[in-house]
Amino acid sequence: MSTIQFSSLANRLRRTEIRELLKLTRMPGTISFGGGLPDPSIFPYEPVKKASIRAVEEFGRQSLQYSPTEGEPFFCEQVAAFMNRQGEKVRPNEIFSVASSQQGLDLLAKIFVDPGSAVIVERPSYVGAIQSFRQFGADLHGVAMDNDGIIPDRLKDKIDDLIHRGNRPRFIYLIPDFQNPSGINLSLKRRKQVLAIAAAYDLIVVEDSPYRELRFEGDLIPSLRSLDPDGRVIQMKTLSKFFSPGFRIGWITAPPEVLEKLIMAKQGTDLCTSAFTSIMTACLFQDGSIERQIEISKQLYAKKAKAMLDALDRYMPDADGLSWSHPEGGMFLWLRLPECIDTTEMLYDAVEKKVAYVIGSCFYSDGSGRNEIRLNYSYPTVEEIDRGIRSLAEVVESRIHEEVTSAHRS
Amino acid sequence: MSTIQFSSLANRLRRTEIRELLKLTRMPGTISFGGGLPDPSIFPYEPVKKASIRAVEEFGRQSLQYSPTEGEPFFCEQVAAFMNRQGEKVRPNEIFSVASSQQGLDLLAKIFVDPGSAVIVERPSYVGAIQSFRQFGADLHGVAMDNDGIIPDRLKDKIDDLIHRGNRPRFIYLIPDFQNPSGINLSLKRRKQVLAIAAAYDLIVVEDSPYRELRFEGDLIPSLRSLDPDGRVIQMKTLSKFFSPGFRIGWITAPPEVLEKLIMAKQGTDLCTSAFTSIMTACLFQDGSIERQIEISKQLYAKKAKAMLDALDRYMPDADGLSWSHPEGGMFLWLRLPECIDTTEMLYDAVEKKVAYVIGSCFYSDGSGRNEIRLNYSYPTVEEIDRGIRSLAEVVESRIHEEVTSAHRS
Repeated sequence: MSTIQFSSLANRLRRTEIRELLKLTRMPGTISFGGGLPDPSIFPYEPVKKASIRAVEEFGRQSLQYSPTEGEPFFCEQVAAFMNRQGEKVRPNEIFSVASSQQGLDLLAKIFVDPGSAVIVERPSYVGAIQSFRQFGADLHGVAMDNDGIIPDRLKDKIDDLIHRGNRPRFIYLIPDFQNPSGINLSLKRRKQVLAIAAAYDLIVVEDSPYRELRFEGDLIPSLRSLDPDGRVIQMKTLSKFFSPGFRIGWITAPPEVLEKLIMAKQGTDLCTSAFTSIMTACLFQDGSIERQIEISKQLYAKKAKAMLDALDRYMPDADGLSWSHPEGGMFLWLRLPECIDTTEMLYDAVEKKVAYVIGSCFYSDGSGRNEIRLNYSYPTVEEIDRGIRSLAEVVESRIHEEVTSAHRS
Repeated sequence: MSTIQFSSLANRLRRTEIRELLKLTRMPGTISFGGGLPDPSIFPYEPVKKASIRAVEEFGRQSLQYSPTEGEPFFCEQVAAFMNRQGEKVRPNEIFSVASSQQGLDLLAKIFVDPGSAVIVERPSYVGAIQSFRQFGADLHGVAMDNDGIIPDRLKDKIDDLIHRGNRPRFIYLIPDFQNPSGINLSLKRRKQVLAIAAAYDLIVVEDSPYRELRFEGDLIPSLRSLDPDGRVIQMKTLSKFFSPGFRIGWITAPPEVLEKLIMAKQGTDLCTSAFTSIMTACLFQDGSIERQIEISKQLYAKKAKAMLDALDRYMPDADGLSWSHPEGGMFLWLRLPECIDTTEMLYDAVEKKVAYVIGSCFYSDGSGRNEIRLNYSYPTVEEIDRGIRSLAEVVESRIHEEVTSAHRS
């Protein structure tokens, strides 16, 4: 082949830096704070085995067949029951199954994004969402966060500005609970403010909610969906973070006219979600295995988050501009280094010291965050967390020292 | 919500007629020749149960975790071994896993199709491919087939015409074996001619190959991929037709520069295929279950195809313009009725007589095929096939009678 003519979507595709850098970090012996993987040591092997046997013996004819595009009825029924136990009011026929929340993001991009369409995201935001929206040519606009999440005044200004420029945003994309990458929670007051702004401008709000169930400290804050009086919230859930990413199972609730489009888009995308893993999931909800797994995960990740915070306190140098978040749940901790440090350059030193992280700039739609990094604590062991943070602290310390020396020299 | 602004892709979405009509046919007691479902009575329940247990006990840490976007290594290895046994020369690192071949079609559309891009398809062609390509705004151009498949001269003329109009086709989409919906095989001579034309114009050829393994009569014809000297064929395979559609597992081989784009597009589409069902599939290839299932399916579908052909011979009236295909494999038989009959109108009569089919016009990109229908014989039982075809023949006979009468009256 000499002349392959690709689409403009294909020409926008880039191997994401995060994934290229992750390859660096897969050297044997390297402690990785990159990725966002659950701890395989607590995977629920026995319950999964039991559910797979049940999926064949009791539901074999459905499990091995095509399922409805909307979702396997048994799955929708069990998910709705779970969501109701979690404080959402939802009926089974409002549950739309997707093969991972990444697929949900792809479907959202399909039905909302034209090349040049404005989409509002948090600064920083989830790299996979940035990637899905960008595939379709979205013009991403980041709005700053503080410790209570996205800043309402800034959100309002951004919307005004976009409307003024004739590019009304297609939706506002938020991760309100234990945001990836920052670990920040959107406060209750802010949730109400964000919804009021969305109502004033009649905008769709996407609530991506993979980590909500993993709260190990503090009080649960009502979801955007449950606070929304006019049905403008699209809520996206996944099994990947609190149970297993190996099933590729998630679900979406959305306003009816949006749901209709999502279902039609899914027909052309993959016809239907796996009946086999949908029915296994339904069995695992029904017998309580998933809720037990959530408890087990929370306990372990609380311990690991504490191990990471302790190690940071113990090993990190005192330096102006060096700070980190204190997560109450989820899988990530966010570290800010002094402005003078470029965390992409620093990664090569870190990998030499056998420790890895994800560079902050991956999570910004505008390339900022060069002095920031995301640290994952769910995957490494407690012992690795201690050892890895010690190595990382040494790297940070010598970088700061170098910068100070070179500043003095110049 | 009062003003939701959807994308142009969303505005192109239509609930496909085929799916709306299928709803009609789901009345209790209706014998359905619609759909393209394997027979659940032969689903390999015990092997699947065994594989699921093995996926947990032996491969649990991988099965429940994220997998590489390219595919689970064990899966790629076992698929490559299978493909080599089937006469393809392929290495494990050339296998790219997809969550169903429908996902493969979506990824193809993503990387090749811009609004208005020309794509060449057979007339008729697979409705799901038409749908995926249309989502992205493809300008589909059908090329006529005869009993040996797509007609080379017509293909060449179509390409010339498109190039002349400045719309060089992005690829040629073919289903060479037991084509859906026609059941036709592309002959060996034609395969070589098609590849020579593709080479002359330097075009990509997509070989969608879900039914190839289900040949119950006649000799295997080499695949386009195996006949292709310059690596211009993208071959798409799926487990859905010869094993189980419940896993949502397929795979693609493609020229390296195309594969690279497909993998990047998949990252934003769903990150990765289910590790759990990929590993189960690998186990099922390894222990021979899939090849045994292919044999079982072939034997059963041979019997069912014969039952349908016998019933058509027995019950259908003698009428000019009434004919049907004689499949050597796959799941479908194609029926042509006299020109005067509209099979969409006739469907309501058929459903009243408790028998259903898919209207032919679904499979044409230009709305033709109004007097044609697709009949599936893999799903109904032999007894249902006989009874259903008898009812269908009655409907056809009375329609022909009505048309003749009304023609005489006018």
